Amino acid sequence: MTHTKIRFAVTGLNHGHIYGQTSSMLAAGAEAVCFYASEDDLATKFSSAFPQISRVDTLKRILEDESIQLVLNAGIPVERAPMGIKVMQHGKDYMVDKPGLTTLEQLAELRKVQAATGQIYSVCYSERFWSRAAAKADELIQEGAIGTVIQTLSMGPHQRNFPSRPDWFFSKEKYGGILTDIGSHNFDQFLHFTGSTAAEIVSSQVANFHHPQYPELEDFGDVVVRGDRGVGYIRVDWFTPDGLGVWGDGRLFITGTDGYIELRKYIDIAGRPGGEHLFLIDQKGIHYFDCNDVPLLYAPRLIDDILNRTESAMTQAHSFLAMELAVKAENMADRLGNLQKLEQP
Amino acid sequence: MTHTKIRFAVTGLNHGHIYGQTSSMLAAGAEAVCFYASEDDLATKFSSAFPQISRVDTLKRILEDESIQLVLNAGIPVERAPMGIKVMQHGKDYMVDKPGLTTLEQLAELRKVQAATGQIYSVCYSERFWSRAAAKADELIQEGAIGTVIQTLSMGPHQRNFPSRPDWFFSKEKYGGILTDIGSHNFDQFLHFTGSTAAEIVSSQVANFHHPQYPELEDFGDVVVRGDRGVGYIRVDWFTPDGLGVWGDGRLFITGTDGYIELRKYIDIAGRPGGEHLFLIDQKGIHYFDCNDVPLLYAPRLIDDILNRTESAMTQAHSFLAMELAVKAENMADRLGNLQKLEQP
Repeated sequence: MTHTKIRFAVTGLNHGHIYGQTSSMLAAGAEAVCFYASEDDLATKFSSAFPQISRVDTLKRILEDESIQLVLNAGIPVERAPMGIKVMQHGKDYMVDKPGLTTLEQLAELRKVQAATGQIYSVCYSERFWSRAAAKADELIQEGAIGTVIQTLSMGPHQRNFPSRPDWFFSKEKYGGILTDIGSHNFDQFLHFTGSTAAEIVSSQVANFHHPQYPELEDFGDVVVRGDRGVGYIRVDWFTPDGLGVWGDGRLFITGTDGYIELRKYIDIAGRPGGEHLFLIDQKGIHYFDCNDVPLLYAPRLIDDILNRTESAMTQAHSFLAMELAVKAENMADRLGNLQKLEQP
Repeated sequence: MTHTKIRFAVTGLNHGHIYGQTSSMLAAGAEAVCFYASEDDLATKFSSAFPQISRVDTLKRILEDESIQLVLNAGIPVERAPMGIKVMQHGKDYMVDKPGLTTLEQLAELRKVQAATGQIYSVCYSERFWSRAAAKADELIQEGAIGTVIQTLSMGPHQRNFPSRPDWFFSKEKYGGILTDIGSHNFDQFLHFTGSTAAEIVSSQVANFHHPQYPELEDFGDVVVRGDRGVGYIRVDWFTPDGLGVWGDGRLFITGTDGYIELRKYIDIAGRPGGEHLFLIDQKGIHYFDCNDVPLLYAPRLIDDILNRTESAMTQAHSFLAMELAVKAENMADRLGNLQKLEQP
């Protein structure tokens, strides 16, 4: 990979992921030109983290600056696709926090505009792209360490922090539902690690088991998904207990014909310190890998793709398909009430 | 619990679980009267493990011995229910290895005979009853350690050892299918830990992904199940790699409204030695429990139940319902071919 400097701008500061998106691009050698936000409080916070990035007073200043090649966005989920369409129509690539869209109508429009413009619409599936353990899993699977992958089983529990969440977090129309939102990470991992390029939802369900005070919150969801190269199970929830000490005990089990891999991405409960733990069990034995030194390749690869019009960070088809599956699973999900109201079968 | 000596006999030595069934009853103070087996090789092996238990030459000697209160069985799965019917009709209780039956027709007949005779038909769900970590989970959940249980997620990978397996192991009609057989353990755990007394199968699938040389083997299966008190996901497979060192990395995740529990029943990969590991994460912190000293209560409770006609080891309804769900999941499962033949969705 050879990096010429690329120039990027930032808009949509609503989700904290924008900080990781920005710093990963800076670390990969990209140059930040400016940012736009209508919200003063979010802008002040962003400016104090990145004082070198100046705020501009209209979005137009970004869209019409022909020197800007890439726009980063972590806006309110329902607004991410419309912004991406504008960005692509202005001849720029787009890196957006997941969920990269919230409805199938948005997806259809995005596919049309993306095909017409040839711009990159890259959904930043951070639970893979920012996980060094996941990067190590890539390496091991490519070496044939577990044979052919059969199934991925991923658990994405998240910490509530509800008092600190903005209003849009509790509006289904705005965040898209639990499978669309935090579920989408897991569809990305399923497609990626099985190598599937087509898939269907076998079953999906969402619930608000325990938070009636937030009627549009879904605090639990799960999905069985079947691809052309393997199967997957996904569970997401907002039940991380405060005692865990990190935001979630994210796990990924990858079962192959000749072994399996477990990722303990953010914590090894009552085990080794820190995150980025990978366990490989093969026909010969049990192998532990501390992945803290494994490089993260998403940002540098995206820069390559912007410069060379390649798809090394992620194919466009994958970027969209993971979101399509997430929204389809959300749309067709059985909706369960609270625990007391589970239907008597 | 007060134990008067009860007297038991053994028949059906086809699955090795019969050794654990027998020794657990002996350890709980029951008296072994005799055993019957038509297979000389199995009888010789059993006699050398339990030289104090004499072999009788006909089943009749067991069925017609009025001093015998309980019969243990780990026969070929398809033959377990017919034997249990005979046993109950002779006024004796029955403790049978899982799967306790292989078809819904057997179950209907069993329910009829059990109701008419009032005998106990106890399916020995050994992945719970013989797990000290599972016994500890009972204790913690009863104390409210994780609030109300929302979901169980269990993984039951098993080691192949195919060359050493008898012919019936590869005959679907005889072993009942992967969800009926090793899946049934997990339905037991789902019902038990959620407290559900009614449930339905949301989706199920089985596959022979990688063993075309055994056309009736199912090497993978999974299920989403929904009960009146919580939901469950179950995955079973025959993909334990030889390097693991134990027969399976059996895991159970129990998610509650206020915390979660993980059981690493048989091994803590690259972690603590031995088995019986329980991890509890609650609002206060992360707690590890070595459960090797937790008592197993199934056998002593079953003795109580035999003496007092109670249901302390397990209710009869539960014993049957776990099997009913397993067989229903098996019957309705989508059947996937090998990995190369996964349908293009």
